[in-house]
Amino acid sequence: MVDKLKIGVLGASGYTGADLVRLAAAHPQTEIAALTANTHAGKTMGEVFPHLAGLDLPKLTRIDDADWGKLDAVFCGLPHGTTQDVIAALPEQVKVIDMSADFRLRDVETYARWYGHEHRAPELQKMAVYGQSEHYRGEISRARLVACPGCYPTAALLLLLPLMGAGLIGENRLIIDAKSGVSGAGRGLKQNTLFCEAGEGLAPYAVAAHRHAPEIEQEISRAAARDLNITFTPHLVPMSRGELLTVYADLNEGVGAADVRVHLEARYRNEPFVRVVPEGVIPGTSHVRGSNFCLIGVFADRVPGRIILVSTLDNLVKGSSGQALQNMNLMFGLDETTGLGQQALFP
Amino acid sequence: MVDKLKIGVLGASGYTGADLVRLAAAHPQTEIAALTANTHAGKTMGEVFPHLAGLDLPKLTRIDDADWGKLDAVFCGLPHGTTQDVIAALPEQVKVIDMSADFRLRDVETYARWYGHEHRAPELQKMAVYGQSEHYRGEISRARLVACPGCYPTAALLLLLPLMGAGLIGENRLIIDAKSGVSGAGRGLKQNTLFCEAGEGLAPYAVAAHRHAPEIEQEISRAAARDLNITFTPHLVPMSRGELLTVYADLNEGVGAADVRVHLEARYRNEPFVRVVPEGVIPGTSHVRGSNFCLIGVFADRVPGRIILVSTLDNLVKGSSGQALQNMNLMFGLDETTGLGQQALFP
Amino acid sequence: MVDKLKIGVLGASGYTGADLVRLAAAHPQTEIAALTANTHAGKTMGEVFPHLAGLDLPKLTRIDDADWGKLDAVFCGLPHGTTQDVIAALPEQVKVIDMSADFRLRDVETYARWYGHEHRAPELQKMAVYGQSEHYRGEISRARLVACPGCYPTAALLLLLPLMGAGLIGENRLIIDAKSGVSGAGRGLKQNTLFCEAGEGLAPYAVAAHRHAPEIEQEISRAAARDLNITFTPHLVPMSRGELLTVYADLNEGVGAADVRVHLEARYRNEPFVRVVPEGVIPGTSHVRGSNFCLIGVFADRVPGRIILVSTLDNLVKGSSGQALQNMNLMFGLDETTGLGQQALFP
Amino acid sequence: MVDKLKIGVLGASGYTGADLVRLAAAHPQTEIAALTANTHAGKTMGEVFPHLAGLDLPKLTRIDDADWGKLDAVFCGLPHGTTQDVIAALPEQVKVIDMSADFRLRDVETYARWYGHEHRAPELQKMAVYGQSEHYRGEISRARLVACPGCYPTAALLLLLPLMGAGLIGENRLIIDAKSGVSGAGRGLKQNTLFCEAGEGLAPYAVAAHRHAPEIEQEISRAAARDLNITFTPHLVPMSRGELLTVYADLNEGVGAADVRVHLEARYRNEPFVRVVPEGVIPGTSHVRGSNFCLIGVFADRVPGRIILVSTLDNLVKGSSGQALQNMNLMFGLDETTGLGQQALFP
Repeated sequence: MVDKLKIGVLGASGYTGADLVRLAAAHPQTEIAALTANTHAGKTMGEVFPHLAGLDLPKLTRIDDADWGKLDAVFCGLPHGTTQDVIAALPEQVKVIDMSADFRLRDVETYARWYGHEHRAPELQKMAVYGQSEHYRGEISRARLVACPGCYPTAALLLLLPLMGAGLIGENRLIIDAKSGVSGAGRGLKQNTLFCEAGEGLAPYAVAAHRHAPEIEQEISRAAARDLNITFTPHLVPMSRGELLTVYADLNEGVGAADVRVHLEARYRNEPFVRVVPEGVIPGTSHVRGSNFCLIGVFADRVPGRIILVSTLDNLVKGSSGQALQNMNLMFGLDETTGLGQQALFP
Repeated sequence: MVDKLKIGVLGASGYTGADLVRLAAAHPQTEIAALTANTHAGKTMGEVFPHLAGLDLPKLTRIDDADWGKLDAVFCGLPHGTTQDVIAALPEQVKVIDMSADFRLRDVETYARWYGHEHRAPELQKMAVYGQSEHYRGEISRARLVACPGCYPTAALLLLLPLMGAGLIGENRLIIDAKSGVSGAGRGLKQNTLFCEAGEGLAPYAVAAHRHAPEIEQEISRAAARDLNITFTPHLVPMSRGELLTVYADLNEGVGAADVRVHLEARYRNEPFVRVVPEGVIPGTSHVRGSNFCLIGVFADRVPGRIILVSTLDNLVKGSSGQALQNMNLMFGLDETTGLGQQALFP
Repeated sequence: MVDKLKIGVLGASGYTGADLVRLAAAHPQTEIAALTANTHAGKTMGEVFPHLAGLDLPKLTRIDDADWGKLDAVFCGLPHGTTQDVIAALPEQVKVIDMSADFRLRDVETYARWYGHEHRAPELQKMAVYGQSEHYRGEISRARLVACPGCYPTAALLLLLPLMGAGLIGENRLIIDAKSGVSGAGRGLKQNTLFCEAGEGLAPYAVAAHRHAPEIEQEISRAAARDLNITFTPHLVPMSRGELLTVYADLNEGVGAADVRVHLEARYRNEPFVRVVPEGVIPGTSHVRGSNFCLIGVFADRVPGRIILVSTLDNLVKGSSGQALQNMNLMFGLDETTGLGQQALFP
Repeated sequence: MVDKLKIGVLGASGYTGADLVRLAAAHPQTEIAALTANTHAGKTMGEVFPHLAGLDLPKLTRIDDADWGKLDAVFCGLPHGTTQDVIAALPEQVKVIDMSADFRLRDVETYARWYGHEHRAPELQKMAVYGQSEHYRGEISRARLVACPGCYPTAALLLLLPLMGAGLIGENRLIIDAKSGVSGAGRGLKQNTLFCEAGEGLAPYAVAAHRHAPEIEQEISRAAARDLNITFTPHLVPMSRGELLTVYADLNEGVGAADVRVHLEARYRNEPFVRVVPEGVIPGTSHVRGSNFCLIGVFADRVPGRIILVSTLDNLVKGSSGQALQNMNLMFGLDETTGLGQQALFP
């Protein structure tokens, strides 16, 4: 029996942090050795998240009081903008899996434009690896700092990256209509995420202004080796977990939906967490709730020359904490699926 | 005080029929004189819909037992395919407001293709008027038989009809991403509308195969005076009422989102039930729940030359029973808003 | 045509205030002449509550800026503890319908014990009338200041007051298991009312410590002419509106559930808003959603000598704003049902 | 490495069957070797439950086509009344964990009265062991046929069994107000479990007539060694999973809520799946969603001499499939917690 990896979770009082703890608790080769949450320092995790009260966990501390020396890896679930300083101050031997937005944009000027302040750790940004597990597996394996993608980008890129440069669909000006459960907005107190406001109703938000759009554009542009842009509209849906993207694209001359299906199936045949659902099956968020799976659907449109693509995942798992744990597995040479075998919870 | 209009509701045991009764009960110039529901004949409405048990209503009867002679108007909420024979058999002096799909498609061959059987009343189809109140007001006023649009078409057409022929947006191959509450699927027993199946989750359905697509195409093609087609994907959302469409379009050369806004605002300035929300406001289904309103939002996209349009209404009210009652008001020369003043119920 | 009553709503930015506006907008004899909300002063009601944006309403002002001179009546929807000073400062000719908790407890010492501070307007308390419309109709008609009951007390008292002193059930130590939708907690930002916290789950709260318990005890004790206490446990249920109480009582010797049913039916036979549902029917919150109705169910228990009683209403309507408007009708000699004819919204 | 246990699931197309498969898939010492579902025979499990499509499972067969010879254990999730014949026909070496209601009532006449037909396997009934894991551990370990309790009885008995005979509370005529998510009603098509009927609303059902009441009475009577009865009212709550019981009891002379707490804490200190939450903490269904935990809360009432007790669990896990798997572990000498370590899924 090898020693367990000692991990810390920074920002453990958010939904992302809690879900990381839920998953890590079932991981046979990790030990949760530190949990920080400045506003809840001194409390037990069970006081902040009663559903985790049965676990034997260290108390929440302030970030400044964490003992980094004993840690092998830290997961950061801090609000964007606060992570950069914290990570810059960590001992070098600690590997970092960042679930915040701070290192996702490769260009610090793009970061400054979308996040409203200068990047505070441009040197770290240079060494950060973009953490979409299935498409950057090699780089992630060798990285010290992995910037896990946002939830929307993960769903979008699993669908789109294999199609970039493949000559099947029109790559520029794709239309992505995205729908998310309310947990994507976090546990902070906001009027629009109150039960009475978000329940029994649906609305778009951040129309043409969501920070995940440039992130998606960055990665599909890299894959296609040219500048691409997207139309992206997220919607808030009355469910806690889950995310589904409906993507509208033009098919290239002579290409049919079946060709796109074959291409995506080939790419993901051996992937444990990504599955192209069979023809006639429609993917839904409830098929992946609580699990690390991403499901992809391919549909011919009635309009000739067009295709409708669907991608769905659990925003807190494959869209955040699950992919983070998958990346940790890669970074430490473990089997990539360790601790992530949980099936979806339905109903 | 004039005599009240005596109305009948055929198919009163569905959600559409019940909502018609709810609204008609508050209409000062109607009297509900007949209610039919073959499978519930002999019951009171309150037994079938306890929320209406406080009303003084006639008992449910079989269609064959209804006394048409005393009625001024009937509302049909029967399943598609069953309405044609029933309406054909009604006395001529009875005006008909049909909420089913049977007379919406002007071309009986298109009907046969999408609904899977020959149209059974092609003569009636010729005299049927398409009942989108705001855009066919004159025809509706003079009609005997009004075919009320489907819920998705109502939301789509209120948004798109004013733009057809206006030279502002690309009119062909529009993309409509639609989201609906579960009541749109009716009160029939289906696995996918069980609470545990539809709750806490979202999925598309009838991808590229929904019967409302040809209906939308029919009307925008008429307005644009050329054949247009659309990409249309409906999604089932975990809420009971409400419907929201996100429409993606290209702007014509030299046109901006503000021009589209001005055009739509001008068209609807004096309409009591349609409102273009101010810049910066995002329409949501909870703003119209239970009411006869339709809200429209106009958004510039980040992608140059593109616009994002949003339309939302309550599928059972403006999308069905409310518009039906609005049409009755038009057909009998009443103030169009009579009985429809109810504000949205929020939360 | 008589002049309309000019009404003001203090605290119009809460759910209770918004629902009062929704209802008052449909009341043919009122005109909303003032709306206050200190933290939103200067905004339109439509900015704060988009579902009301279609109404022609005065802007929100600070309380200090309201012109009381022109008002006939004010409805107070302020947080408890803040209403007393405000009401004390109103001109005498303005009638007051208070929807807060400030004047519900007749004894100012009981108030101080449960609300944590001395009562600030004990003189006003003496003239306040407890505003349960069906049981204090006469007093309310003559009152200047009416203290509308809490939502739980309204549901409890409609069920229990007729039984007090009737010799049918054991009156002391009744057990009331109460369930409420989330809107009862208001629009303020609290973690436990976030969608992700309150959704897909149920829990009790304020066990044996809810402020509505002494209010219920006060009124049933008065009716029974002796001190009674109750066991009261409220639960938070994942729905926006609605409230249901399940009450467990002992039957007196020789009394059966049918006797209790007959007694309650006799009491409410002519009440427009209270209905004892027929034997075999089970009342549910969705039967009253958005309406001013209260439904009562009577069930024989399997355990000999015991009875199970159920009472349900919409916490924002009959439990608050609807009853407030009903009281206004009484106070100004209008038909009690004016503006309150709306049927429940289902689904 | 020992051989894995080969298990079969009869009635795999219900929610209970699906959840058993979800859990068993994560159990390191079981292999799912047979799945039956008569109406879905020939389909894959993924066709019937897309959330399980990623698993490598045998196809669904008719019961008559299952190969019992190769199985070590079968789990029965069939509708009540159909299980008795099936189990009677199984080879003797197959152990049976029955999740239906068929063998829960020890007295076949009580069974006949509550289930409306004669018991069809009274000989089997005699050898059946009541499968509440924590309280019948020894018997279960030696049993061939275990009748797993209903969901309500599990929640009730974990709370009440330790108190029977302990002299702390009044044991007779306890009042149990129960609330359940909709999955408890199964996947069959019923109007009251449609999303639009069960959503956004709450109602009691089967008032004083639920079949779990005699089951609870049977077990507490055994524990107390005298005939006890209960008042039991279940309610349907708009959530998919979860169940919470609020129990009202009298304290014996000289006993306080703290004494009851101490007693329950002592009983469950070493139980892995049952936890008495600390004073001041309120248990909720969302704390146990998807997990095998049961949480218990103890509250002093305001009314002297009374106590309020709360018990909550996931009706499909500890209330059904989880406890069934726990029983299998006991029956085959495995660590009782094997395969059941999953934490609750929140949010």
